[in-house]
Amino acid sequence: MQFELNKKYIDDLKKNIVEHDEDSAIKLLYELHAADIAEIYDDLNVEEAKFLYLLLDGEKAGDVLAELEDDDRERFMKALPSEVIAKKFIDHMDSDDAADVIADLPDERQEEVLSHIDDVEQAGDIVDLLKYDEDTAGGLMGKELISVKESWDVEKCIAEVRKSAEEIDEVYYVYVVNDDNILKGVLSLKRLIIAGNKKDVKEISNYDIISVKVDIPEEEVVNIARKYDLVVLPVIDSIGRLVGRITIDDIVDVMQEEAEKDYQMVSGITEDVEPSDKIWVLTRARIPWLLIGLVGGIFGAQVISSYEGALAQYASMAFFIPLIAAMGGNVGVQSSSIIVQALASKSAGFDSLFMRLLKELAVALLNAIILSLLIFLFSYFFYDSLPLTISVSVSLIIVVVFASVFGTFVPLALDRFKIDPALATGPFITTVNDITGLFIYLSLSHYIFSNFGS
Amino acid sequence: MQFELNKKYIDDLKKNIVEHDEDSAIKLLYELHAADIAEIYDDLNVEEAKFLYLLLDGEKAGDVLAELEDDDRERFMKALPSEVIAKKFIDHMDSDDAADVIADLPDERQEEVLSHIDDVEQAGDIVDLLKYDEDTAGGLMGKELISVKESWDVEKCIAEVRKSAEEIDEVYYVYVVNDDNILKGVLSLKRLIIAGNKKDVKEISNYDIISVKVDIPEEEVVNIARKYDLVVLPVIDSIGRLVGRITIDDIVDVMQEEAEKDYQMVSGITEDVEPSDKIWVLTRARIPWLLIGLVGGIFGAQVISSYEGALAQYASMAFFIPLIAAMGGNVGVQSSSIIVQALASKSAGFDSLFMRLLKELAVALLNAIILSLLIFLFSYFFYDSLPLTISVSVSLIIVVVFASVFGTFVPLALDRFKIDPALATGPFITTVNDITGLFIYLSLSHYIFSNFGS
Repeated sequence: MQFELNKKYIDDLKKNIVEHDEDSAIKLLYELHAADIAEIYDDLNVEEAKFLYLLLDGEKAGDVLAELEDDDRERFMKALPSEVIAKKFIDHMDSDDAADVIADLPDERQEEVLSHIDDVEQAGDIVDLLKYDEDTAGGLMGKELISVKESWDVEKCIAEVRKSAEEIDEVYYVYVVNDDNILKGVLSLKRLIIAGNKKDVKEISNYDIISVKVDIPEEEVVNIARKYDLVVLPVIDSIGRLVGRITIDDIVDVMQEEAEKDYQMVSGITEDVEPSDKIWVLTRARIPWLLIGLVGGIFGAQVISSYEGALAQYASMAFFIPLIAAMGGNVGVQSSSIIVQALASKSAGFDSLFMRLLKELAVALLNAIILSLLIFLFSYFFYDSLPLTISVSVSLIIVVVFASVFGTFVPLALDRFKIDPALATGPFITTVNDITGLFIYLSLSHYIFSNFGS
Repeated sequence: MQFELNKKYIDDLKKNIVEHDEDSAIKLLYELHAADIAEIYDDLNVEEAKFLYLLLDGEKAGDVLAELEDDDRERFMKALPSEVIAKKFIDHMDSDDAADVIADLPDERQEEVLSHIDDVEQAGDIVDLLKYDEDTAGGLMGKELISVKESWDVEKCIAEVRKSAEEIDEVYYVYVVNDDNILKGVLSLKRLIIAGNKKDVKEISNYDIISVKVDIPEEEVVNIARKYDLVVLPVIDSIGRLVGRITIDDIVDVMQEEAEKDYQMVSGITEDVEPSDKIWVLTRARIPWLLIGLVGGIFGAQVISSYEGALAQYASMAFFIPLIAAMGGNVGVQSSSIIVQALASKSAGFDSLFMRLLKELAVALLNAIILSLLIFLFSYFFYDSLPLTISVSVSLIIVVVFASVFGTFVPLALDRFKIDPALATGPFITTVNDITGLFIYLSLSHYIFSNFGS
C-alpha cells in the first residue's frame, strides 16, 4: 500500500537508530517500498543512513540506492567502502541503474567497485554500458531483456522466458532476433499466453517494430516513446543488433528532467534546487541570472545617464521607463518560450525561418497596436503632455515588435547551430530587450520633447 | 518502423485527395502508425481530413482520432455526422479515449453519438466513465482490464486471459479480486507464464499492491505512478472494488500537460499554443499577461510621476530605475518558481511556513549583499555621486529581500487555500515587485538626495 511519510514515523526510526535497535528498525522498514525508504534519506545524516540502509537485504538495498536523488547518492557512497557498494548494492541492481551509480563515482573508485562485483555477467554488462554517453539511448538502456530466435516454437520460447524471468523484474515483451542477433520483431507476453504451444514464434510475432539506435540523444528517445505510447523500447546498434532495452520509468525521468531544466531556465535558476537544499546551494543557483540582470541594469543606467540633461529638463520622460523595460522583457520571454516548446516537441511544422518571423511580426504588431492604443488613452487623459503620450505609444510599438522578432529569432538560430534553444528563454533575451527598449524610448522621447516642447 | 513526415509525402497525399484516388491514398497510409497519421492532420483542411480518415479501417480510425490534438479533433468531429463518429470511430476505441472524445462534444450531440454505438458494452462503459471529473483518476481510467478470482487456479486464469485478451490491446497484469470484486492483488503475465498450470492464483499473486481511489486528483495519480515506477495503475471505488485501470501513456500525457501549463504560466502565456496556430489565437494567448504588465507599468508611471519634481532636480535618480525594477521581478520569479516546483513534486519537506520564510530570508540576504556590494562599487567609481551610490545599494538590499519573501509567501498561501500556486509565478508577483521596488528606491533616494545633496 502507499505510505505517507510523517514526523512520528521518522522520530520512531531515529530513536531506533540512536539506540542501535536493528530489529525494531527493520520492522519499521519492512513493509515500505524502496521509493519510500529512499525518501527517508532527506531526514537522515550520512551515518544514520548507513546504519539503516545496510540493514536491508540485497534486492531492496539496490532498489533504494537506485531511487536516491543523485547528489544524496553521491554523498552516501562517499561514506561506504568500495566492497560494500559492490556486494551490498551493485550486485543486486538492474544494469542500467548500476551503470548510472558507478558512472557518478570518481574514476579511481569505479574500477575498485567493479573489481568487487561477484556476478561477472553483471560486471560485464556495466562495463559495456559505461561506454555510452549518458545523454543517449545507450546511456538510458539496460541489458535485462529476453530474446528468442525467430525459428523457435512457442514452447521453446516459454522455456526461455522461464529461464530468464527469474533475474528480470518486469517483462512485458520478448524480442525476436535472427541467428546474428539482429532484431526482427517483438512478441508480447499476452500473445505468448494466447497462442497454442504448437505455434511458431514467427507466426505470432509483430514485425512492425519501433526501435532506437544506441547513439541517438535521449530527447529523441522520449519523443518516440511518447508519440507511439511505448512502455519499453528496444535499442539496436548501427547494424541492427539488439543491444538493450529502455523502460518507460527511465523515459519518464528524462521527461521530468527536461521539463524541470526548461522551467528553471525561464525562471532564472541555474541548478536543480529544492527549498530543503542548503542556503549556499540555493544562492549559487540564483546568483548567475541575477548577475546578468545586474549587468543589464548597469547598461540601462548608462543609457539613461547619457540622457541626464534631457531628463533634468523634461522629468516626465522618466515616467514610462519601467513600463517600456517590462514590456520588452515580457514579450521577449513569451516569444522565445513558444518557439522553445515547439522545438522540444518537434511540433514547429515546416514553415521556413522567414515565414515564421513574418508571422511573429504579424502577432507582434497586433499585440503592439492594442497595447499602444491603451497606453495612448491613459497617458492622454492623465498626463496632459502630448510629447510624452506620443513618445510612449510609438516606442511601445517599436519595442514590442523588436522584442518579439528578436525573441523568436534567437532560439531558432541557436537551434540551427545545435545549441540548446532554451538558453534564449533565460537572462540574455530579457536583458537585451530591456536595454534596447530603453534606448528606443529615450532617444525617441528626447527627440520629440526637444522638438515639440513638454 | 518510425516514419519521418516530409513535404514530398504530404504533397503526394494531397494529390491523391484532390484526384479522389482512394487506392493510392490507402497505400500511402498503410504502413503508418496511427500517431503518424494523426500528425498529418496539421497539413490538411477538414474536408481533406474527412476524405482521408474515413478510408481507414475501424481500429486504425479510432486510434487516429485518439491521437489527434484536442482542438483539431473538435473541429474534425463538427464536420462528421453523429452516426459516422459512433460507428467508424468510437466503436473501436479504448473506453477511456472514447469517453474523452465524447466529453468534448456539445451536450446535445453526446447522446446522439452514444445512441449510434453498436457495442452496448462499450456504450455502457463510456456512460460510466463520463460520470467522473476529467481531472481525477476516474477521468483518466479505462475499463479494459482482465480480472480473475482469488479462488481460481492458473489454468482457469489463462483461459480468462485468452477470452478477454482479444479485445484488449495491451495487457501486462491481471487483477485478482474476491467474489465482491474487491481488489486483492495483482498477477503479472510473466508470473502467469512461469508458474506451472497446477498452481493456484493465490500462491503466485502479489498482494502488496498499489492502487488509487477513483476520485483523487490526476496530479496525485502522476506522483504515485512516477514514484513507484508503475506502467499501469488499478483504480478502486470508495469500498475497494476494482473499477478501472490507468495506463502509463495517459499518465505521461498528464505529466506533459502539467509541465507545459507551469512553463506557460512562468513565461506569461495563458493558453497552450504552437507557432503554427492562427495569429489571433497566438495574440489571445499573449495579451492577458501583457495587459497586466501594462497596468503595472501604469502604476509605475504614477509612482515616478509623484517624484517628478525631485527628478527634475536630481535627474541621476532615474539611472537605476530599470535595474531596481528588473531585480525585484527576477528575484520574485526565482523564489516563487522554486516553491511551485517543490509543491508540485511534494518535495517541500516538513518545514513550517515560518521556517521556510526564515530560510528564504537568509538566502535573499546573501544574494542581496553580494549584488548590493557590486552595484556599490560600480556606482562609486562611475557616477561620482555618493547619494546615488548609497540609494541604489541600500534599496537593492531591501528590494531583493522583499521580493524573495513575497515570492515565497504568495505561492505557499495560495496552496494553503487550494488555489494553484503556479498562478504566483505569473504576472502578479513580477508586477507587485516592480512597483514596490520602484517605490522603495525612489522614496529612499529622494530622502537621501534632498538631505545630503547630489
